[in-house]
Amino acid sequence: MKAIVFDGTLRVSEVPPPRLSGTEALIRVLQAGICNTDIEITRGYHQFHGILGHEFVGVVEQTTDPRWRGRRVVGEINCACHHCDLCLRGLEKHCRNRTVLGIVSRPGSLAEFCALPLENLHEVPDEIPNDEAVFVEPLAAACEILEQITVLPDDRLCVVGDGKLAQLIVRVLARQGGVLTAIGKHEKNLDRMAGCGARVLLLDAVEDERKQLMGTFDIVVEATGSPSGFQTALMLVRPRGTLVLKSTYHGALSFDAAPLVVNEVRVVGSRCGPFRTALEKLQRQEVEVSSLISARYPLTRGLDAFEQARKSGTLKVLVSMETGDRASH
Amino acid sequence: MKAIVFDGTLRVSEVPPPRLSGTEALIRVLQAGICNTDIEITRGYHQFHGILGHEFVGVVEQTTDPRWRGRRVVGEINCACHHCDLCLRGLEKHCRNRTVLGIVSRPGSLAEFCALPLENLHEVPDEIPNDEAVFVEPLAAACEILEQITVLPDDRLCVVGDGKLAQLIVRVLARQGGVLTAIGKHEKNLDRMAGCGARVLLLDAVEDERKQLMGTFDIVVEATGSPSGFQTALMLVRPRGTLVLKSTYHGALSFDAAPLVVNEVRVVGSRCGPFRTALEKLQRQEVEVSSLISARYPLTRGLDAFEQARKSGTLKVLVSMETGDRASH
Repeated sequence: MKAIVFDGTLRVSEVPPPRLSGTEALIRVLQAGICNTDIEITRGYHQFHGILGHEFVGVVEQTTDPRWRGRRVVGEINCACHHCDLCLRGLEKHCRNRTVLGIVSRPGSLAEFCALPLENLHEVPDEIPNDEAVFVEPLAAACEILEQITVLPDDRLCVVGDGKLAQLIVRVLARQGGVLTAIGKHEKNLDRMAGCGARVLLLDAVEDERKQLMGTFDIVVEATGSPSGFQTALMLVRPRGTLVLKSTYHGALSFDAAPLVVNEVRVVGSRCGPFRTALEKLQRQEVEVSSLISARYPLTRGLDAFEQARKSGTLKVLVSMETGDRASH
Repeated sequence: MKAIVFDGTLRVSEVPPPRLSGTEALIRVLQAGICNTDIEITRGYHQFHGILGHEFVGVVEQTTDPRWRGRRVVGEINCACHHCDLCLRGLEKHCRNRTVLGIVSRPGSLAEFCALPLENLHEVPDEIPNDEAVFVEPLAAACEILEQITVLPDDRLCVVGDGKLAQLIVRVLARQGGVLTAIGKHEKNLDRMAGCGARVLLLDAVEDERKQLMGTFDIVVEATGSPSGFQTALMLVRPRGTLVLKSTYHGALSFDAAPLVVNEVRVVGSRCGPFRTALEKLQRQEVEVSSLISARYPLTRGLDAFEQARKSGTLKVLVSMETGDRASH
């Protein structure tokens, strides 16, 4: 089968299809998204070599449970051992022996086929088209924030970043009440956030208004995908406030830690989230996502897809495994 | 009056006594402690120039309320405006316009006299000698941890650091139940922590046992007073665990932030704490502190006191303003 492989070099390669073990299902991928994490992996993040990708919608082709055959699915990316201490305390997502689709010891979904345990799969309701279903994984990551922290109706919320994940976070938080501010570098992307009800600010304006903005937000979500956002986020959060950290990237974070201690800020690392919640939000049309698609490429043009995804200001780039006109750019 | 002043250079100087304003009381300092923050200020932390020191026990000499005159007191170090948004929501400790004794825009307590608003003062019960009362401020900072996080009886706790603040933290946490581990570089200091019921480990042993220890603690408190401890603490905390950050220092913290996000760790900055709780712990003899005194100097030998306090492995250095034999080293 064809797949987008990173082994120090990024390439579209012909590779053997996944071999199934245990209760794994073989999934024919229909569409897959490129996430910032995929791009960071090509920069050395997590030292992963193999088939990239962990955002997808597909159809179950082969499985030990015939009821699943032919179903259209999305899949949770963490595959747990169910035996370690973390699994036994209900933290399967953090399983010590886990594999992670396209990130840790498991070939990813930027391929014609991928494999996941049946327990990781969620059937996609008919009302949700592929163009939306492919957003379930990152939308769930956005929803994870509300699993970890409590947002009060009067809270002043701020999202730092205007990329694809930040867009989803704004869509999720905008429904929580309270004033929501989004800060970014790309006017066009900020306009989209304004359309979701956020007050938007260009990063340059933040520097100009530093004195007025400093320490004024109850909750700040850092989702820039780069180390640079953290210092801004820490400057914006109020004493005893909460800073949610969503960015994963290759390389070190360097900052003055004193304000974190002196202001008794709470920093919450946040990763994968609840697929069920994300699917519900799409099914109820609470969150609009398909307008975030910046470009589509067929799998054979995977390198072009990554090149596009790396460009500053680009939102979601989809890779389509379906043939025909829909897959063209 | 004599005072230990830092103005780019550390010196014992003759300076004018504090001028009182509002409800401030003039306090004759009996003993003052040297904190790691004082040492960091001499390295550039917080860009504070003036009289150092914020740990003290003293006697009220002059005040607008005669009932306080002659009382032996300790004093909370944050002086609030009571008008800003943070004061109005009950976060006076984080007041936007605050002065902080010996740290922000207020002369400190390493002097014959210092001044604080009456509301900051706590009378010291007769049962608590000066040698213990001088520990109230850092002991309160140790108690702050339990104001911010919940410790469950089965939690595996770890304190990284074996200095003066870490010693107090171990004394406070050892009473919470659960297994408490302390990690440090100084065998003698670790022995003291073992005496308080902690399992102790030298940092070198942690490196050797890295695989066994990684991600195994529910709560890790970083109290090394230097940036180096953070990476160790982050390595030790389990996914979804809590890392309490107590260290303030001059200079940047640099670390790989990915484990924080991927493991969804919660980092809690922690600073000043409840004086009342600390006084109660001393009054009930729940916490033993005076054995942590490494050395005593008279105010006139303030430079020697700092030199001693800077030495690796030194615990509390006290500066005594009382004359006579008690003040000698």
